[in-house]
Parts: sequence; structure tokens; C-alpha cells
Amino acid sequence: MTLTAPASDPPTDSPQAGSLTPLVAPRSIAVIGASDQPARIGGRILARLKETYRGAVYPVNSRRSTVQGLAAHPDIGAVPEPVDLAIVVAPGAEVPGIARAAADRGARSLLVLSAGFGEAGEEGRRAQEELAAIGADAGMRICGPNCIGIVNLTIGLRAVFSTIDGVPQKLGGTALVSQSGGFGMSMFEMAQSSGLGVSYMCATGNEADVSSGELVGHLAEQPDVEAIGLFLEGLRRPDLLLAGARRALELGKPVVAVRTGRSAVGMRAAASHTGALASADDVVSAAFDGVGILRVEGPRELVEQLRAFSAGRRPRGSRLAVVTSSGGAGVLMADVAEAAGLELPEPSPEPATRLGALVPSFGSVRNPIDPTAQIVNDQSMLQELFATVSAAPDYDMVCVSGVARGLGPGLRETIQRAAEATDKPFTAFASQPDVALDLTERGVPAFVDPNRMIRALGRLWAYERDRAVLLDAPPRTGAAPALRVEPPVSAALAEHVARRYVVAAGVPVPGERLVVDSESAVAAAEEIGRPVALKLSADWLTHKSEHGALRLGVVDSDAVRCAYRELEELATTLRPEGAPPAAVLVQEMAPPRGLEIVCAALRDPTFGPVVTVGLGGVLVEITRERRLALAPLDRSAARDLVGGLAGGRLVGHPRGLSEAEADRVADVVVGLGGLLATDHELQEIEINPLVVADGAVVAVDALAAVSTTGAATTAEATPC
Amino acid sequence: MTLTAPASDPPTDSPQAGSLTPLVAPRSIAVIGASDQPARIGGRILARLKETYRGAVYPVNSRRSTVQGLAAHPDIGAVPEPVDLAIVVAPGAEVPGIARAAADRGARSLLVLSAGFGEAGEEGRRAQEELAAIGADAGMRICGPNCIGIVNLTIGLRAVFSTIDGVPQKLGGTALVSQSGGFGMSMFEMAQSSGLGVSYMCATGNEADVSSGELVGHLAEQPDVEAIGLFLEGLRRPDLLLAGARRALELGKPVVAVRTGRSAVGMRAAASHTGALASADDVVSAAFDGVGILRVEGPRELVEQLRAFSAGRRPRGSRLAVVTSSGGAGVLMADVAEAAGLELPEPSPEPATRLGALVPSFGSVRNPIDPTAQIVNDQSMLQELFATVSAAPDYDMVCVSGVARGLGPGLRETIQRAAEATDKPFTAFASQPDVALDLTERGVPAFVDPNRMIRALGRLWAYERDRAVLLDAPPRTGAAPALRVEPPVSAALAEHVARRYVVAAGVPVPGERLVVDSESAVAAAEEIGRPVALKLSADWLTHKSEHGALRLGVVDSDAVRCAYRELEELATTLRPEGAPPAAVLVQEMAPPRGLEIVCAALRDPTFGPVVTVGLGGVLVEITRERRLALAPLDRSAARDLVGGLAGGRLVGHPRGLSEAEADRVADVVVGLGGLLATDHELQEIEINPLVVADGAVVAVDALAAVSTTGAATTAEATPC
Repeated sequence: MTLTAPASDPPTDSPQAGSLTPLVAPRSIAVIGASDQPARIGGRILARLKETYRGAVYPVNSRRSTVQGLAAHPDIGAVPEPVDLAIVVAPGAEVPGIARAAADRGARSLLVLSAGFGEAGEEGRRAQEELAAIGADAGMRICGPNCIGIVNLTIGLRAVFSTIDGVPQKLGGTALVSQSGGFGMSMFEMAQSSGLGVSYMCATGNEADVSSGELVGHLAEQPDVEAIGLFLEGLRRPDLLLAGARRALELGKPVVAVRTGRSAVGMRAAASHTGALASADDVVSAAFDGVGILRVEGPRELVEQLRAFSAGRRPRGSRLAVVTSSGGAGVLMADVAEAAGLELPEPSPEPATRLGALVPSFGSVRNPIDPTAQIVNDQSMLQELFATVSAAPDYDMVCVSGVARGLGPGLRETIQRAAEATDKPFTAFASQPDVALDLTERGVPAFVDPNRMIRALGRLWAYERDRAVLLDAPPRTGAAPALRVEPPVSAALAEHVARRYVVAAGVPVPGERLVVDSESAVAAAEEIGRPVALKLSADWLTHKSEHGALRLGVVDSDAVRCAYRELEELATTLRPEGAPPAAVLVQEMAPPRGLEIVCAALRDPTFGPVVTVGLGGVLVEITRERRLALAPLDRSAARDLVGGLAGGRLVGHPRGLSEAEADRVADVVVGLGGLLATDHELQEIEINPLVVADGAVVAVDALAAVSTTGAATTAEATPC
Repeated sequence: MTLTAPASDPPTDSPQAGSLTPLVAPRSIAVIGASDQPARIGGRILARLKETYRGAVYPVNSRRSTVQGLAAHPDIGAVPEPVDLAIVVAPGAEVPGIARAAADRGARSLLVLSAGFGEAGEEGRRAQEELAAIGADAGMRICGPNCIGIVNLTIGLRAVFSTIDGVPQKLGGTALVSQSGGFGMSMFEMAQSSGLGVSYMCATGNEADVSSGELVGHLAEQPDVEAIGLFLEGLRRPDLLLAGARRALELGKPVVAVRTGRSAVGMRAAASHTGALASADDVVSAAFDGVGILRVEGPRELVEQLRAFSAGRRPRGSRLAVVTSSGGAGVLMADVAEAAGLELPEPSPEPATRLGALVPSFGSVRNPIDPTAQIVNDQSMLQELFATVSAAPDYDMVCVSGVARGLGPGLRETIQRAAEATDKPFTAFASQPDVALDLTERGVPAFVDPNRMIRALGRLWAYERDRAVLLDAPPRTGAAPALRVEPPVSAALAEHVARRYVVAAGVPVPGERLVVDSESAVAAAEEIGRPVALKLSADWLTHKSEHGALRLGVVDSDAVRCAYRELEELATTLRPEGAPPAAVLVQEMAPPRGLEIVCAALRDPTFGPVVTVGLGGVLVEITRERRLALAPLDRSAARDLVGGLAGGRLVGHPRGLSEAEADRVADVVVGLGGLLATDHELQEIEINPLVVADGAVVAVDALAAVSTTGAATTAEATPC
């Protein structure tokens, strides 16, 4: 057993900064499989490049001398320069050969649209590995295969084979990254048709080489990118994702993500779709939390959140002013704001007086501020009202609700001017999509759903608040391994062995003696102080109380003898064929009225060490009240986890934990996380219950499991 | 103390069926305050009536002989016939006088748009009461005051003062009822601009007489209404709402509701807005559940849900087929479906074979069904694919995702034909609002958000499933009182008194003796069987364990004596000045390893008796894991509550309740609910813990409170 760890592994094969530039912003492109027919993919791609792309384009077609009026080359070797990007539109079986030829010609990157790889059985998986190896050998980056393509409107690049006819193509500070090409384009359509300019859309498909995580990091570095939307199924390079997201966080560029594949059918569908494995959903959320990725439920919410960020304004606090002449809308938004962590304070006396002079008596200046329909029809008074609200020191954000089409463009212009006159986030709700679009185009992010608008504002503030905390803590991106396909085999340990890890993590344990007969049990009980507990301990016994392998509150010597004999008999019954015998432990009793907590650390196949803390005891699997974070973590982060339990009610409640007790529990969380991060043999450790009473904690029972294949879980690059 | 109850109170002043017809579908209208100027409310209302209303219109204006070209009448008394509806556009102070005159002239109903009543202080409240009394005396129904008006497109009635310019006004089976006029019109706009025809929009404002609940019942009876959307703040007539919703349920007309005012600011805003009181949010949800009202988060989700219902198709089960050529969309929708209670089974062999012949090998026939872009471009093959999926016995609903604009109207036509060829619910997701609108207009309810589409389908099934169960149970609409402004004053009872209620509810209690000195305590312990518990019991002692007023596991006679003396001393310290002395109880100990449940019943000021069941013990206020229902309820409903605890994990889990134990807990819930429904003096009763062990339950501790003002909580009509 290794309680001290080897030095932290070097980061996995992190690619060099800027190495994705030839892929995302190529100066020259070869289209291998270029076609004359616009209905064919090779035709459509070429036509779009001709239409808007501002670099050199080289069609490659072995059977024609010109394609779509451009001189064609019989193969990539004949292209007159080593291109930044070769786009491959060819049957899957031909792709490895093409990749080799492209590498030989010095192509800097490859975009493989062809399918039939990792998503298509064993043979396809082998072809994908071959493709990845060709790229790695030559230093040629590969995007795809099985990928819809890349859009970079800043250079007119629209190398996607899906339809984009009828979709606005407005430049903007938003970039999208999506494993799923169909969904990537769907989000592009949603964004563009709601007035949000999106300059970049990169689909990664099977991720033979370039991963969505690496793209996040690359895009974050681009000066014209202000926020990133991410659609993930599996996670092939969690290490690069965490590093990229951390970099985006440092630069203040929000990453908003949808991650799917949590349901059984979803996992099946995801696996068959890109061949990627799924990770436990709450671990993914914890990993996202650790680098400030904002998780949303789906593509529509993602686009709405990015639209909220698109104005580039950031709140300095959580105080929202709601201006609406619909009382009902005001009440609804107040409800949603509370749930979203925002406050709706009343204005302070000075602005309240100014508002009072503007608003008729049947309106309200108390926030939600109801200017009444009378004021809404008087643009100069409304302008003054907005100016007063925006300037009030009481508010960090302003939103306005109920922009009906019938009120005409005059109202929208007033709102636009009001938004321009402040640097606070300023958004609007309108019932009709065209009105919302008009407002968004006027620079006022507008929403057709008031609930979503308020939640988006809530995340605007949550991002700022969490960013400050996260940037204060050291980055922890080295611990995430590259994706492993097979989890390591591990074996459970007996309680008294697991206890050694608990002690190593600095967690108090009850007095305990390992005894060999009833008389040594009596002596141990005497020494520890009765009443005591007697327990069986064996690596094959992980649910002691279910098997009756516990005797609690044993008060006198005869009872100790009796309990010892009973446990010995039980051990004979329970012990599996060929297993080592169980030990008998005599243990100090836990404080009788303590609160039971569960603390654990485990090694997630995607993200590495993860800690959990929750309500413990026998109902742990029923209540499932727990919080997670990636490890290692500092005490303040651990304390936040504890404080978040039971909706924030566990700490400070008369029946719950005191502040000091919460600190003690946080110490245990930190200790377990550190243990798993440094001891690569340890797979899992769980203390349940950790009994908390009178300001102290004690680990009454523990489980642990170690790898049976050595330090198999150290980070090891296994890019697929 | 009354353990038997008076006969159930008669229903509160339930209005006669059809009495809202003159208001909602008037044959003749007088506009009191009609104006020549279209910018004024009295001008706008009249102009709209002239434009489209198909009944007789009588402008009333004391200063003009014609208004907008129509002969005007100096007052309502001069109008040549007793109108169905008089619309009042006049300063608040003049309204009572106008109402009297209208009643004298035989007007059947009054729509009061004027503000300055219940929402505007004490004087306004008095004016509103006066107005209500005038209506009640004359049998003239009053809608409002402080209300935006009524739309009934079936007769061209658009008596609303808000702008509706530029909003489509399509007839349809959807009706909207809203306390908030602004939000009612906002929902009308949202619905109409997404292709959902809405024939009725009724705003109720302050609800001096006509309540939103009564309107739900009235609209449900209209043959052309198929589904109802409801926006509620306070609840003025919960009795009529429950009755109306129950009637809608019987008729199979879904009611979808948003209810606001749950947050502190929201409650403040709601109170200042309509003067209505708010009720506990989870009680509202429980009440809605009991009559099949589907609760949604906001107006956008409400409109989307109604659009899902608008095709009139209902699923026979929970099995959904998803057709999409985006793998990412498929995975996302599979995730959402699982959370929404839907299944995505694979097709059975026969349809699977047919699909396999259509779909290329790189697609999927496993559901989500991925026909690939190749098939999507071949309308005849796609048609065949849809026909196969729709006809498969494996599916109750079909949805299609990813209808891009660039794919053109051909695809939409194929989808339309596919939907027409089946009677199963058939919906679509499109990224762009105009494409979704086109599909909806083709009869395929379409959504711009795939998450919301799937959730809407989940509720389509949930409605059918719950409807069958709810219609099986007897309606319980009589128990809800009309809204009370002041909660009754109540007093807590001592445990040994509360115990009599527990016994009356048929709940097992531990053996117990009330003792008066230490020797009778010893005798009681002997009789009951040691170890025993000793407790103080007094009406001024509601948190025994916090005050140390409990001695558990007292094993011998000396310990009993000692415990008795300690409790006596403690009682002296704790007893408030002038309070009666505490009793000492000797009680049988509960089974040591039982599961602790909390069961309670209380009297909600809005909905009357409510039962709750949850995880009990000392952490009850921290975990807050509980479920609620209105009482009385039958055992099957109570069993559903218990089964729903902890995400369905409590029952059947090895550490949780067995099926038999869950039945016992359900019996307790039924018993407490029945007690509160029949004993009108009892305000609240809580058993915590109800200890469950070895198939039996025992109520170890109980609290109860009774009204100190007699049977003050019996249903009593107090319309404001």
C-alpha cells in the first residue's frame, strides 16, 4: 500500500498553442473529393468556399481538370503549396491513404467529413486509430472523422455540408463547439435567427485527434471571441477541456455547455453515435463547476445564455431592477429571480423620490417598478424613468418586460437609448420573436421567455461571482486523465485496513483494538471504556449492518464475551469459500446523538479524483443528498460543498452542523481528496458514517478499494 | 374537543351554471365611457367592437349625441335594452354609481376596466366591496375591477384596452384565463404568434366577483374549447377553481397553469398588485395535482404545452419514437425523455426489418431513429419511414427533430402528410421560429426547443395517466374554503392530549401511562415493560428533545425514579408564568432500528385540509423531503404519496419501507386527513416520528393544535 504518492504525472500530450490555427483559420484549403455537382457534399463545400472564403482554394479530383471552373489537381501531392487545411470528402476506406498523401505534401491539418470510423464497429475503430497515428506522426492535426465541418465567418469559411440556406450569417463574438455536427448547426441557426452573431462553429465528430476541449482553449485565445457555447456527448479529452475552460475563465470568456448522454437510452445512443463513453452526470457537473463552465439544459437555453453575455456587460452584484407595466409579469419575474439567486431590492430614497415623481399613483416604484401604461406611451418620461433606474446605486442589472409589437418601434428605440446610456447589463422580454430580434439587433439582448431571461441574468452574476473565487484557487487541470476505455480492476479492503487510509487523511477515528478471542475482547473493552461496539472486519464484508455483523452499545464483560462468540459464529457462516478469516474489532462507541455524514473520494474514469459529501447513515442510498467536486481541492471549496447540502439548510440549523463542525467536515473532504490525488493505488474510500457531535468528527466506519493492477490509474495518454 | 365532525358544510356560494354567458358571449354591449378618441381606452374599446363584434353596441357618453358615428346615450338607463354586458371605462370613484344604474337597467354583467380598488389601499378595498355587493344584490355578475378585459374571437369580441395591433387573431380550441391582464395578453400574443389559435382570453383583475376558477369551469363547458391556459397570482376562490378544473378533467379538457407569488418579493408584488393573498407553493401544487391541473413554470412553457395539446391527439402510453438525423439531438432527447417519464423502446422485429431496409447502414433504426441526411433528401423514402414508425405497435407518440429551413417546404409537407396519416401525437422540432410556425400551421405542433417539446409530450402522457386515476377517485371539491384573509388563531395541545387525536385517526401508539409521582412512574414502567421512555407533556412544550424533556431507554426502577425527579425539576424551570403544570408520561420504547417518518395534516387557509408525509426524525426541517395532497384522500392516493418519497427510492429499498409498511404509512396519512376534514376544530396534527419497523407503525410523538375561536375554519364565503 502506497500512502505517499509518486510526483504528479506530467500533463498528457498537450498540443502546442496555436497548432489549431491552420484548421480554424486556414490561409489555403485543398478540397479532396471536390465535385461539380452542388447536391454532392464535395460540390457543396467547394461552392461555399468559392462564394465567400478569402484564401486560396485547390480542388482535388482525379477525373477532371477543372471543377466548378477552378483548375483541379489529380491528387493532393499535385497541389502547388502545402495547404493549411485539406478537407476530405471521400469514402471512409480511402481516407487513411488520403491522409498519408496529405501529410507527405505537408498539409498542416485535415478536416475529415467522411463517416464509417469509430461509430461503425471494430473495423471503423481500427481505421480511426490508423488515421490518428498518421496525423500524430506527421504533426498534422485531424478534425473528425464523421464531422459536419467548420465555419469561420471572419474569413468567409463555411466548410460544412449541412444546409445553411436561409440562415443569417452575422459576425459576432460568439463561438460554438459541438461534437454533434447536426446540433452544432442547429445551435448556429438558433443563434443567428435570434440576432446573435456567431463567427465560429467547429464540429469535432469522432475526435480522432482534435477534441472539443482543445478547441475551447484555442477559441478562447482568439481576440474576436467573447464567449463559447459547447455541446458535448462523451468526453474524449477531459484534461484539455478543463485546461481550455480554465484559460477561458482567466480571460473572462464564459463557456456555456450542454452535456448529454445521462440516460440509459442516451448513453446507448451516444455510444453508437460517436463511440465515446459517458461519465456520471453529477461528476461532469462538478468538473464544470470547478472551471466555471455554465451548464444549461439544452441548445435553446445555451443560445439564450450566450445572447445574455453577448452585450459584453457584466454585473457587479446580484441586484436586479425589473421594469414592467404588467403586475403579473413582475410577480413571476420576482419569483424566478429569487430562485436564480438574484435580489430585487427597493430603490433607495433619492431614486425612489425621482421615480415617485414620474410614476402615477396606481403604478409602483418598489421594484418590480410599474411605470403604468400611461408612462409607457410617453417616451420622454419613460426615458427619464430608465435613466433613473439605471443610475440608481441600488441595481447591478436592469430588465424590462412586456415589449408588445403593437407599442411600435418607438418604445424599442427608447429601450435601446436607455441601454446605451448605462454600462450595466440591460435586457428585455418581448412576447413575439420578431420584436425580440429587433431589440437584440439594437444591442439589447431580448428574450421571448421571461423565466429564461431572469435565469440568464442569474448566471451572468453567478459567472462573475464564481470566477473571482475560482481564479483565487490554484488551477487543477493536471489531475484529469485522458479518457480510459476500461475502468481499472479494484478490490475492497477490510475496515481495519481502510482505517489506515482514514488516519493517513488526518481524520479522527474511534479507539479500536483488533482482538483474537473473547478474553482479549473483554480486556480491550475495559481499556477503551464501555459501552463499546464489536464488529467483524473483512475485505469480503462491505455491508456490515445488513449482515448483522455489528454489536452496538455492549455494556458489560459478559455481554462482550457473548457478542464476540456470536460474531465469530456469524463470520463462519458469511465467509466465502477460500477467503481469509474476518477480524473482530472492539471499538469505542460514537457519540450517541451525533449527526451522520458521508464523506468519500473516488476515481472517476474521465475526471480522476472526485470527492463527495452528503447526509450519511443507513438512508444514504435513499436520500442521495450529496455534493461533489474534483479533487484535490482547498478547504474553502470543501466548505462550500458542505454548506450547499440540503439546500444550504444543514449548516447553522439547530439540528444541523455548527460552523466549526462544518469546517471539521470540510477538513475530512480535503483529506480524502488529497489522499486520492496522491495515492494512485487507492481507487475509492468512503467514510459512512462520519459522526459529528459537539464540534468534533469521528470516522466510525470506512470502506476502501485499491487497484489490483498496480498504479493503473495514473494519468496516461490514451487518445483514441 | 370535537372528535366527530359536523356535517360537511354546504358548498360556498356556487354561481349557477351558464351565468357567465352574458359576460363571455354577450349578445349586446353598452360601453360606459365611450370616446371619440382612439388613443383613449373608451375610444379604443369602442373602435374594436365596431370593427369586429357581431352583437349590438350602445355607446354611453353624457356629453355627446354620437360617438364614433354611433348614436350615444347619456347614461346606461337610456340604453334601449337591458344589455348582456356593460363595459365600464370611468374613474374609479364613479364606478359604484354606474354599477347601480346598470343593475337598475337590468344589465346582466359588468366588465370594470377601471383601477383604484382592492389594489389601492383601504378606501379602494371598501369601494370594491361596495361594488361586489351591488352586483350580488342585483344578480349582475362583475368581472374586474382593475382588469384588462375580455376577448372572444368567436363573436368578434375584443374588449381589451391593451394593444393587439400586429398580433394574429386566429380562432382555435384554446382559451386563456388570467388574473393579470398584461400577462393574459402576453400569452395571447405568444400563442397566436406561434400558430396556436386562441378564441378566448379572459382577464379577471381584482376578482370582486367573477374569479379565474369560475371562468375555468365555464370555459370547460363550451363545446369549442379544448384546452385552457391559466395564469394565477393569488387564489380568491379555490373552491370554484377546484370544481372548475375537476369538470374540465371530466370533459378531458386539459388545464395548464402558471401560478406565481412564491417568493418574498413576488408575494409583496402580488399583494400590491391585486390585493390577493398567496398560499404555500407546495400546497398549490398538491391542489393542482388533485384535479389534474398541469403546472408549468411560465407563460412560454404554458403556450408550448397548449400547442402540444392543440392537435387534439392523446397518447395511449409513454412510448416515444424519435426520428432525427442528428445523433446529438437524439441523445439529448433521449435524456430529456427519461426525465419526463417517457420510454424510447427499440422497434419490434417486424417494423425494425422494414426500417432496416430503408435506413443506410451508417444510420440507426434503434430509436432514436436516424434516417441519415440521405433519406431526409428523398421524400418518398422518408414518407415510408414515417409511415412505418407511426404504424409500429411499439410507439404511442412520434416526434421528428431538426427541420432546418434550408431543407425547404418539401420536407415540411412530408412531415405534414406523415402526421395526417396517423392518429398518434406527432410533433416536430425546428431551430427557427418561422419554420416551427409553418409546421404548426400545417397541423404539426412544432417547437423551437427540443427539451421543451419532449417535456410537453411527457405531460401529454402524464395527463392521460393521471386523469384515469383521478376520475376513479371521488371528487373532493367541497373541502376547499373560499379565501380567508386572516388565519384562525390556534393553540398547541400537550402530547398526551394530541395522542387522543392520533388514536382517533386509527394510528397505533406506544403503551403509555400518565404518572403523578416517582412511585407511580416505577409501577407504570413495570406494567409497560422496561426499558421505557419518560417525557414531559404540556401544551407549552413543543420541542421536547431540544429542551431535554425526554429520557429514553430507562432500564431499572432506580433510573425511573431518577428520571422522574429530573423531569419534574426541568418542568419547574421551563414552565411559563401562569401556565398549567406539565404531566409526566411513561411510555413504551419504540423499536430501536425503525425508520422514522413524519405524517401530518394541516388546514391551509386557501385549500383547507392538507396531508403531508416525509422523512422524519430530528433532521426533518433540514432534509424537507415530503409530499403533499389535499385531504380527505383515499388509500391509493396516500400510497402514491409515500411511494413518491425520495425520488421513489424509499419504498422497496432494502433500507427503506417494504410494500406492506408503505401501506401502513398510507393508512396513517388517510387517517390524519380524514380527521382534519371532519373535525373542524382541529387545525394541525403532526406525528414525528412515526416509527416503522417489522411491518408495523407506531406514533412515538405527536403535536396538535386546535382553533381557539371555535369551528372558525369551516368553509365560509368571504368573497372580497
